[in-house]
Amino acid sequence: MRGEITLAHGNGGEENRSLISGIFFKHLKNEILQKAEDAAVVPFEKGENIAFTTDSFTVTPLFFAGGDIGKLSICGTCNDLAMMGARPRYLSLAVMVEEGFSARELEKIVRSMKKELAKNGASVVCGDTKVMPKGTIDGVLINTSGIGETLIGGIGASKLREDDLIVVSRDIGAHGAAIFTAREGIELESSLESDCTSLWPAVEALLDAGIEPHAMRDATRGGVAAVVNEWAVSSGVCIELEESKIPISQSVRGICEMLGFEAVALANEGTFLLALSAEDAPKAVEILRSFEGNGSASVIGRVTGEYEGRALLLSEWGTKRFLESPSGELLPRIC
Amino acid sequence: MRGEITLAHGNGGEENRSLISGIFFKHLKNEILQKAEDAAVVPFEKGENIAFTTDSFTVTPLFFAGGDIGKLSICGTCNDLAMMGARPRYLSLAVMVEEGFSARELEKIVRSMKKELAKNGASVVCGDTKVMPKGTIDGVLINTSGIGETLIGGIGASKLREDDLIVVSRDIGAHGAAIFTAREGIELESSLESDCTSLWPAVEALLDAGIEPHAMRDATRGGVAAVVNEWAVSSGVCIELEESKIPISQSVRGICEMLGFEAVALANEGTFLLALSAEDAPKAVEILRSFEGNGSASVIGRVTGEYEGRALLLSEWGTKRFLESPSGELLPRIC
Repeated sequence: MRGEITLAHGNGGEENRSLISGIFFKHLKNEILQKAEDAAVVPFEKGENIAFTTDSFTVTPLFFAGGDIGKLSICGTCNDLAMMGARPRYLSLAVMVEEGFSARELEKIVRSMKKELAKNGASVVCGDTKVMPKGTIDGVLINTSGIGETLIGGIGASKLREDDLIVVSRDIGAHGAAIFTAREGIELESSLESDCTSLWPAVEALLDAGIEPHAMRDATRGGVAAVVNEWAVSSGVCIELEESKIPISQSVRGICEMLGFEAVALANEGTFLLALSAEDAPKAVEILRSFEGNGSASVIGRVTGEYEGRALLLSEWGTKRFLESPSGELLPRIC
Repeated sequence: MRGEITLAHGNGGEENRSLISGIFFKHLKNEILQKAEDAAVVPFEKGENIAFTTDSFTVTPLFFAGGDIGKLSICGTCNDLAMMGARPRYLSLAVMVEEGFSARELEKIVRSMKKELAKNGASVVCGDTKVMPKGTIDGVLINTSGIGETLIGGIGASKLREDDLIVVSRDIGAHGAAIFTAREGIELESSLESDCTSLWPAVEALLDAGIEPHAMRDATRGGVAAVVNEWAVSSGVCIELEESKIPISQSVRGICEMLGFEAVALANEGTFLLALSAEDAPKAVEILRSFEGNGSASVIGRVTGEYEGRALLLSEWGTKRFLESPSGELLPRIC
């Protein structure tokens, strides 16, 4: 690859994929990495089914409505495991702190981690701390990696089948909108909080009820649009979403109208999509709705054979348009 | 904890320990984390013995004599696994890149990773890429976490026994001295290269030969001084090092004299200490010396009961002094 790395290379969409394939996959590819989605499933001799994932957290501001970088760093990694049907078990925690950062604020961040770890039944088992000279990083950057125990197999982006239904666990775009308003100092009449939350409890309830998801994915960078496009390509299917069925809160709708964002491209940190059989869908929606914040869980679309590898958005008036994977500079440091 | 985080909190020595215990351990402690050393050994139901570790790499300059941040990021994490007697297997790779960074340089870094992974027989199986707006980080920061398979048990900082011998795998301080000279633009007559290397091949050879190390530790931040102090405290023993037996190259000695550093406190990235029985030591030294760069592997000290929890440095003239764990601001961004 030539040229310079741009912000667009970190958008979770098209350019991000080109950076990954043009530099990282090119030199480091192997069978496990190629199959890895939110987490990689790694084989061990004694047959343990282990999922492994990593994520860096660079969000700014560090504290926002609905969470902080500490909560986010635990949710993000545990959610990646949960999306592979894996119970979060062991986390590593690597923190980079800028010289001069307040010890009290750092402790507040770590307290948020503790609370969120408990919700996942997971523990931090190893760590690393680096202090960076003033001005060489901005505040605090965190990396967590996680090991989980996969409870189900056969789940993944390539497992969608025609006639599957697409379910979303709640209203979308809250994290992206909350970070944006916090960063720009926009005052809203309504309360707008990030959806940042741990998804394992809901996933566990779904699995316990015998639901068999074909794919699950939390719609982080690149939002719902990135997820459905990746699924459509990986499974060679068409995903058709009904615009009117996608739950979007009034606050997020307002932010989108004001600033020209599309809610389907906004980042989420506690909202996931499921692809599953029409038979399993109603039960899944019912279970999801029993969890706090998930009252608007809904079936929002279905898998068809119309345009292979593409996603469609169907309007209320019967028109259709392609829903593209986000490209260009999205919000940097959203997670 | 109160006040501000200072560079000294990242020194791998005393203040680093106080930050970890005052903030991270305080809120996140659990049995596995408490026992974790270079890596944590995590239990799984089917009895797989898995070691897990994480490290962030922040070195500046990114390219230095003997390595670059890519090589370092693989060596660092694989070495942490090797030191627990674990074969490196699966790595995660999280890269943060500053907007505007050269794609070619990034590719060069990734190529170094590939080369080093092969030496360890390990693979990168999951990753994350974040692009940071210009000025919010300096160049490239990398985190790798690693999963290994532990081949031996009963190894650790608390397993040293009286009359054990202390072996060092090669001459010390090369990484710290190389980074310092690169950073300060010091020109040396002699060639000085970082010791940055993968230790698993040497460790594997030791284990294959039936050597039973009681403890192994690569002497990274805080150097040899930090390792022997930690071992002395954890095992409740005294470690006595003979100054004249500690191998130090002419170049490192020169840098230390010029700048007032102590070689025993300089960071290494491919140099480790072993504590083992007097019976195993000669064979271990012989095996170590057969590896490139390890021609100066030597017995440098022994474990006694003289001062519990302390390390001593014995001079050639028969004088003794306590060797303290490094404190204060050491070189930031050394690894």
